[in-house]
Amino acid sequence: MVKWCIKLFVILVYDVNVKRVAKVLKTCRRYLHWVQNSVLEGDITEANLKKLKVELMKIIDKEEDSIIIYILRTTKYSARQIVGLNKGGENLFI
Amino acid sequence: MVKWCIKLFVILVYDVNVKRVAKVLKTCRRYLHWVQNSVLEGDITEANLKKLKVELMKIIDKEEDSIIIYILRTTKYSARQIVGLNKGGENLFI
Repeated sequence: MVKWCIKLFVILVYDVNVKRVAKVLKTCRRYLHWVQNSVLEGDITEANLKKLKVELMKIIDKEEDSIIIYILRTTKYSARQIVGLNKGGENLFI
Repeated sequence: MVKWCIKLFVILVYDVNVKRVAKVLKTCRRYLHWVQNSVLEGDITEANLKKLKVELMKIIDKEEDSIIIYILRTTKYSARQIVGLNKGGENLFI
């Protein structure tokens, strides 16, 4: 189906118990790239986003952990500005 | 000047030493609303975004702390999805 090929640009932020951080990060990194402690971003297909969410649901404790996925309308945000250290690398500015 | 009235929609994610978290959060909350541990979002004018960045620069240790500000092209992201707990409240879905 065509809709599964649509690329989305997402920003994912997790807030999970330290016991599950490594597993959550490892799973997210298979789909997105890491930009900062607990933040990942990248292009992803709808199908892969669905898969990622299913995988995360299996890892997290739904009573305690929280993961926010921002899906942007455009394939890129307008700007990403860093105040302080650039931990994840790439083209940044203030 | 007209440009200072332009409203931006931003997502701010901070990764700062625990010693400075309270101060960073307090500063950010004066401009944006909290959605999750270390994540805030909201509409902000260019002028206020500039002020916020100046204030944050005074608080953080630039060798250790990192704050990412995503400025979106549109006034809203396309969707915000939560996996797990909704800590910051508001209309969420998976």
